[in-house]
Amino acid sequence: MADRDSDDDTVVRLSRMEAFSDGVFAIAITLLVLELSIPEGPEGHLLSAVLGLWPSYLAYIVSFATIGATWLGHNSITHYMHGANATVLRVNLALLLVISFLPFPTKLVAEYLGSHEDEKVAATIFGITLLAVTSLLSVMWTLAVRHQLVHPATGDEEITLLSKRLRPSLALYLVLIVVGWFIPLIAVIGYLVIAFFLIFPINLRRRETSAPAV
Amino acid sequence: MADRDSDDDTVVRLSRMEAFSDGVFAIAITLLVLELSIPEGPEGHLLSAVLGLWPSYLAYIVSFATIGATWLGHNSITHYMHGANATVLRVNLALLLVISFLPFPTKLVAEYLGSHEDEKVAATIFGITLLAVTSLLSVMWTLAVRHQLVHPATGDEEITLLSKRLRPSLALYLVLIVVGWFIPLIAVIGYLVIAFFLIFPINLRRRETSAPAV
Amino acid sequence: MADRDSDDDTVVRLSRMEAFSDGVFAIAITLLVLELSIPEGPEGHLLSAVLGLWPSYLAYIVSFATIGATWLGHNSITHYMHGANATVLRVNLALLLVISFLPFPTKLVAEYLGSHEDEKVAATIFGITLLAVTSLLSVMWTLAVRHQLVHPATGDEEITLLSKRLRPSLALYLVLIVVGWFIPLIAVIGYLVIAFFLIFPINLRRRETSAPAV
Amino acid sequence: MADRDSDDDTVVRLSRMEAFSDGVFAIAITLLVLELSIPEGPEGHLLSAVLGLWPSYLAYIVSFATIGATWLGHNSITHYMHGANATVLRVNLALLLVISFLPFPTKLVAEYLGSHEDEKVAATIFGITLLAVTSLLSVMWTLAVRHQLVHPATGDEEITLLSKRLRPSLALYLVLIVVGWFIPLIAVIGYLVIAFFLIFPINLRRRETSAPAV
Repeated sequence: MADRDSDDDTVVRLSRMEAFSDGVFAIAITLLVLELSIPEGPEGHLLSAVLGLWPSYLAYIVSFATIGATWLGHNSITHYMHGANATVLRVNLALLLVISFLPFPTKLVAEYLGSHEDEKVAATIFGITLLAVTSLLSVMWTLAVRHQLVHPATGDEEITLLSKRLRPSLALYLVLIVVGWFIPLIAVIGYLVIAFFLIFPINLRRRETSAPAV
Repeated sequence: MADRDSDDDTVVRLSRMEAFSDGVFAIAITLLVLELSIPEGPEGHLLSAVLGLWPSYLAYIVSFATIGATWLGHNSITHYMHGANATVLRVNLALLLVISFLPFPTKLVAEYLGSHEDEKVAATIFGITLLAVTSLLSVMWTLAVRHQLVHPATGDEEITLLSKRLRPSLALYLVLIVVGWFIPLIAVIGYLVIAFFLIFPINLRRRETSAPAV
Repeated sequence: MADRDSDDDTVVRLSRMEAFSDGVFAIAITLLVLELSIPEGPEGHLLSAVLGLWPSYLAYIVSFATIGATWLGHNSITHYMHGANATVLRVNLALLLVISFLPFPTKLVAEYLGSHEDEKVAATIFGITLLAVTSLLSVMWTLAVRHQLVHPATGDEEITLLSKRLRPSLALYLVLIVVGWFIPLIAVIGYLVIAFFLIFPINLRRRETSAPAV
Repeated sequence: MADRDSDDDTVVRLSRMEAFSDGVFAIAITLLVLELSIPEGPEGHLLSAVLGLWPSYLAYIVSFATIGATWLGHNSITHYMHGANATVLRVNLALLLVISFLPFPTKLVAEYLGSHEDEKVAATIFGITLLAVTSLLSVMWTLAVRHQLVHPATGDEEITLLSKRLRPSLALYLVLIVVGWFIPLIAVIGYLVIAFFLIFPINLRRRETSAPAV
């Protein structure tokens, strides 16, 4: 409430940006399951049909892990911020646009992985979307730092550390997008590895700089 | 919590109105992607099928940008308010009705843009829905000011500025609805331009009145 | 946060119950639009197809208005409460079960209204669901009062007034369920009237007891 | 806000973890209804078609009750916690992965219960998913206690009591998974009984330790 009395009206509350973003993240991550469906078949086909859906599960896990990693990163960013401004709200909106779009390329990979002609196209669209997600998250943090929206008590080391963690592994994504044109399956597995790399190193590095209690 | 002790019981907490609205905005903006789907086709059809979906992407972007702009406007409105009353809650409900309805006309445009007979109908329904969204947002702000729900510390200039920003460009929408009956594609592109105009000028004008830090 | 130090652990925070409920209300109210879809048809069929969907719009509006009225009532209830307990959390869960089920009978009415044999069945299932929604909301308020979860500063008059407002018009719903077996359309319109009656009188009566500012 | 000044940066705010989790719980519990759909049929088929959907309703109720019980348990856990750390955030993410996946096995049970060959497969996948949900919730509480994220004022008795309540009845689930291979219907009903057992005993035991007011 205090910021309503602030003389700088461009710094607005984070709370609604967080609530709206949490909503979009939560919905996008939950809608992914709607793509999973079993084709009709004769009695006794279910087990093999369920197992045959492995490209769907793979795409589901990659998208879930990427959205999860992005949410963790978003959480870290707003943890250090004391408010938002018009620019950050708009970059956040662009990030949410790509997050909410993600179920579409996920569906493409789920449907076309294994189809020799089309799997390249699906994997490439998927990779570009994932690259956009990570890039926008990194842009958002850079702008928050530049526009002095980071809590003054935050040390420079912490800012640098988070900047490194969020750096989108641009090169890695670009390499995988090229690889995906030749061996789409490898690219999709690579996207999963990046997502896990984004989720877990943050944890490990955090511990190094933290109190022994945790 | 303080407002529970208020002697004017009709002024209620904003928090749940914000949470419920954020939920509806977030879901409506995320459901839009469900309309995107690739028709079945022979091997190798995917790239052209994905490209052929351009009316869907266009409708998707227009609706996303309009909901995003509306959320930003809603955010600005509640930023200046210190509470809600029964009338505002009901106008808000009407706004959410139209927001949650938006995926339907979006789907119509996505499906029928390019179909010579039917694209007019789709573009007109789309335009009327977008007009209703912006009008209701403007009505909500007008009522908040009239019912003295705006934080007393807010200057008259700020109130006037936000009123102007939120003014729904009624004339512009009406012109485009008529245009849409003859050249639907132009109208839909026009709706996109209005949404961007609603998203970005707020930013620019805000800067003029704000501290140099931002 | 203060209630964590409370010596009576059974009174828990309202915040998560509100957040979870707002989520379910927001999703159920937004999912309703997914039922609206235009059947395939020849060029030029769109306008008549859109108009022909009137049973869908009617069912959509009834369900939206009922969920909206229920959210307003839920909002009023938690406005007067200072905490929740195990029983209220479980009644709330039952209420959310029925709210989240509502898109199914809505779809039945949308599809079968006008089908002479089946519209009775659809209208009856719809009516019973709406009756369950209103009854559970009323039960929740009664339990909140009985379990002393209402803010001590709340006057007896206010409690009685809200109890009356929330009383589910049981008799009216029961009459309409019977009417629906003979003239389903009248029953569905009746459900709409009840929803508007639940939304608006609260407003009018509130004004009578409130400060002149509103 | 206070925790931003904390010297132990690994303990982060609970608020966004709660908001994101509430979103996923709310969406998963509400998406379940999308599986309910009436097959096309001749005039007058609706009543028998609606009654014939009983496996869908059963699966719907089991999943709703399980998600509801999990949300109640999650609520109890975060009620006792004063913050989250990186490990808890990630276990929470794994829990949400399984919760958001639940509509898929629910759909399998709804479709295949009664199909002699395939119902075993559906019931087994369902059971394993429910087991994973309860196990992950229990792991989350164990980690919260071990990592000293529980509010210091919480008594040892309370911690032990909640640990027992949350213990996932592993043996019971394992027995039912085996039973489900022979009599799937019994297993599914058993899962419903476990969910009710998880929802209601918490209530009763709580009362024993609480003030007489409740």
